[in-house]
Amino acid sequence: MVMGNRAPNKLEWRIHVRNGTSEILQPETGLVHRIWSWLKGLLGEFMLKIWNFLEKARNIAVAEPKKVIHCLKVGVTLTIVSLFYYMRPLYEGVGGNAMWAIMTVVVVFEYTVGATLYKCINRAIGTFLAGSLGVGVHWAASHSGDKLEPIILGISVFLLASAATFSRFIPSVKARFDYGVLIFILTFSLVSVSGYRVDKLIDVAHQRLSTIAIGASLCVLICMLFYPIWAGKELHNLIHRNLEKLADALDGCIAEYFTDCSAGDSWKKIGGYKCVLNSKAAEDSMAGFARWEPAHGRFNFRHPWKQYLKVGASLRSCAYCIETLDGCLNSEIKAPELLRRHLSDACITLSSSASFVLKELATTVKTMRKSSEIDFSIGEMQFAVLKLENALKSLPNHLVATPSSTSDGDAKAEPIRKTATPSSVMDILPLATLVSMLTETAARIKEIADEVNELAKLAAFKPPNTKKASQSQSSNQVDEPSNNEERTKGLG
Amino acid sequence: MVMGNRAPNKLEWRIHVRNGTSEILQPETGLVHRIWSWLKGLLGEFMLKIWNFLEKARNIAVAEPKKVIHCLKVGVTLTIVSLFYYMRPLYEGVGGNAMWAIMTVVVVFEYTVGATLYKCINRAIGTFLAGSLGVGVHWAASHSGDKLEPIILGISVFLLASAATFSRFIPSVKARFDYGVLIFILTFSLVSVSGYRVDKLIDVAHQRLSTIAIGASLCVLICMLFYPIWAGKELHNLIHRNLEKLADALDGCIAEYFTDCSAGDSWKKIGGYKCVLNSKAAEDSMAGFARWEPAHGRFNFRHPWKQYLKVGASLRSCAYCIETLDGCLNSEIKAPELLRRHLSDACITLSSSASFVLKELATTVKTMRKSSEIDFSIGEMQFAVLKLENALKSLPNHLVATPSSTSDGDAKAEPIRKTATPSSVMDILPLATLVSMLTETAARIKEIADEVNELAKLAAFKPPNTKKASQSQSSNQVDEPSNNEERTKGLG
Repeated sequence: MVMGNRAPNKLEWRIHVRNGTSEILQPETGLVHRIWSWLKGLLGEFMLKIWNFLEKARNIAVAEPKKVIHCLKVGVTLTIVSLFYYMRPLYEGVGGNAMWAIMTVVVVFEYTVGATLYKCINRAIGTFLAGSLGVGVHWAASHSGDKLEPIILGISVFLLASAATFSRFIPSVKARFDYGVLIFILTFSLVSVSGYRVDKLIDVAHQRLSTIAIGASLCVLICMLFYPIWAGKELHNLIHRNLEKLADALDGCIAEYFTDCSAGDSWKKIGGYKCVLNSKAAEDSMAGFARWEPAHGRFNFRHPWKQYLKVGASLRSCAYCIETLDGCLNSEIKAPELLRRHLSDACITLSSSASFVLKELATTVKTMRKSSEIDFSIGEMQFAVLKLENALKSLPNHLVATPSSTSDGDAKAEPIRKTATPSSVMDILPLATLVSMLTETAARIKEIADEVNELAKLAAFKPPNTKKASQSQSSNQVDEPSNNEERTKGLG
Repeated sequence: MVMGNRAPNKLEWRIHVRNGTSEILQPETGLVHRIWSWLKGLLGEFMLKIWNFLEKARNIAVAEPKKVIHCLKVGVTLTIVSLFYYMRPLYEGVGGNAMWAIMTVVVVFEYTVGATLYKCINRAIGTFLAGSLGVGVHWAASHSGDKLEPIILGISVFLLASAATFSRFIPSVKARFDYGVLIFILTFSLVSVSGYRVDKLIDVAHQRLSTIAIGASLCVLICMLFYPIWAGKELHNLIHRNLEKLADALDGCIAEYFTDCSAGDSWKKIGGYKCVLNSKAAEDSMAGFARWEPAHGRFNFRHPWKQYLKVGASLRSCAYCIETLDGCLNSEIKAPELLRRHLSDACITLSSSASFVLKELATTVKTMRKSSEIDFSIGEMQFAVLKLENALKSLPNHLVATPSSTSDGDAKAEPIRKTATPSSVMDILPLATLVSMLTETAARIKEIADEVNELAKLAAFKPPNTKKASQSQSSNQVDEPSNNEERTKGLG
């Protein structure tokens, strides 16, 4: 049976099939229509991709506006150099000297001042050395007869290119002169096989060097004068941000475990240590570029950038520990609630004093001013470690419920004793691990503090702000009158 | 008083000073002599530095001869290209087309085939796109009047250079097209500001492109035909070497703790995990280059390189755990000897079964053949975890010496019970931590195994060698008849 449709303004054909259901008869779509819809789908997908890409770009631009500024700087420099050479009457076409200036700007202009200087200086040294050597080889070859000439040239190119390429594998060369060696190979090959006579060659070299020098100095000027991005400062910021991230992660980790709050925001904070785990490559390259930078802001020419790498290494070592701690806390075996409650105060005290030390170190690095409180807070952290160990020591006497248990328990443990359920080592296991990991973390934080102190000494950080320090110390004494007493007892 | 000297063939003048001591009178050294000795010292130092440098280079060459082969390949390619262009009668001097071929070889020839292809393809795409766009802009500008021309050119260079530079900050572009974008900026600036008429420009572009193509294809040919170094294979090797390193480190760590042997060789083995900690950057770049490589050896064109990164990430996560374990084992608090001995068997069993799993996984990856024993050995590892937990559970009953202790102890614990010294939680702490960390390590090794299995599925590893497997299984049954029984009991 065939029937019309319910939709008022659209006709649709249905066939009732034998088993009682009905099928809609689709109008036969032509090839053109199908291709059109396929194309439309493709176009839609393409537009979506473009849109997502632009969205991503926008997010980067909003998050780090200095990247946008860098791009504008590149654009301006390139425009200046292009138009300068375009409008010069001396211009000789694409093959002319303008090319070298444009090429220099494109290749040499980097994100940080250090990287730009590194490339400029390497380019200059590489070009100069290879140029002189190339002219020499070219002269020797051209004076040794027509038959020997290509042989001498070929052998010299082969030997020098191989040796220079190999030198790029040696770490000390790679770290400082990788780009210079590349330019050396390029220039040497170009010069030594060039068909010019030597006197003309020197002329060409002079013109080319001056063009490159103009391009490079324009780059350096614009890079350094307009909103400069210093590799050293970036490294400095990375280190103190990482210190803060570790502090937040440690705090968040312990708080989450003991309070069972798992808000979205805290998760983000805890995850901060993951950036620290993989920061080695960035730190190494920034420290490498920072070496080339002149004195800027609060950093002298011989600022101890290598010490930043040591601080970074100790930070990572602490981050490994926090990563494992995080993994252990999220493992399946859970400690009994009573045991957890018994240790929670001591754990939270330790984690907060440890993260306070980290924050204090972050402030020290950030402000480049020695902290007057750092020794005190490290002492507090170590005291908190002892307190935590004591809390753990007082556990079995209550929980294993032996008749001969010595009664050195404190008031807090009282309600726990009443339960008197014998608990096995397996129950204590997660907490024992937690305590060990926290102790280990505290020890590694001490190492970070040592490295930061060494940095403060090498970089001659300003002396602590004594007035503020004495104020805060006196307020400490008012707030916690028993703290110092307790500490001496605990350490004694 | 003045006196002669004891040395037979050298005259020395001494003066006895009032307080009884004597001073040697040095002959007055001339300025020339001092400068000469200073220069000699300087020269000696310099020679020493050079010697050390050569020593380092020799060590690298001996350790990785393929690096030397790469350098020779670069030398040969460069020599061929140089001499080819040097001897062509068409040669037009340094500014001519030879330059582009030499430049292409120097810049494009990389250590791995993947990196070379990446650069070649990027260079081609970048040059082609920028060239077409540049010719278009140049044509539009030259038809819009003398006053508008520089403005249009300047704006287009500024906009495109800025946008392209910014795109290099977007991770997806950076990973795949970073070099292409650089070449795009370079070519576009060169072409759009060139003073040529468009018809001549196309001629120049054609010549240049063909020169670049010759250079690039020579690079690709020599790179791929003579002793090719594939980024994919390097990544593959890195992953299975890292698996082996972790296995050795875990084994060494536990063996050192329980047997107190600290030989120089074992230290080297244990330190292997440190390479794993920082391998992320190398893995990422190799996986990026491997994508560009054609099918080679046992790797297809669409080999799941991304899965290698996941395996690498799980390896690192396990390495963090081993790093912390290593730190905890070397901490100051030592467990009492008796407790240690009680757990030593179970710990060593677990560590050896865990490192066996890792070695089995390494073999799986290395041979690209699924292992028939992997499930069995993972089961064994998990059983060892249970056994270790049981060993820990049986501890307090003997050691805290309560009268109501249930006697589920095994024969091994008998001598310990006799001592009957009540031990606090603090004594158990290092061992509890060790057990936790080993358990956590085992859990992470399970994750590695899952990722490797996924890799085996995606990359269609060969099925296990059933004949050998059945043989080894039957030998297992002969050697350890009770093993399977125990296992089912333990897991049940």
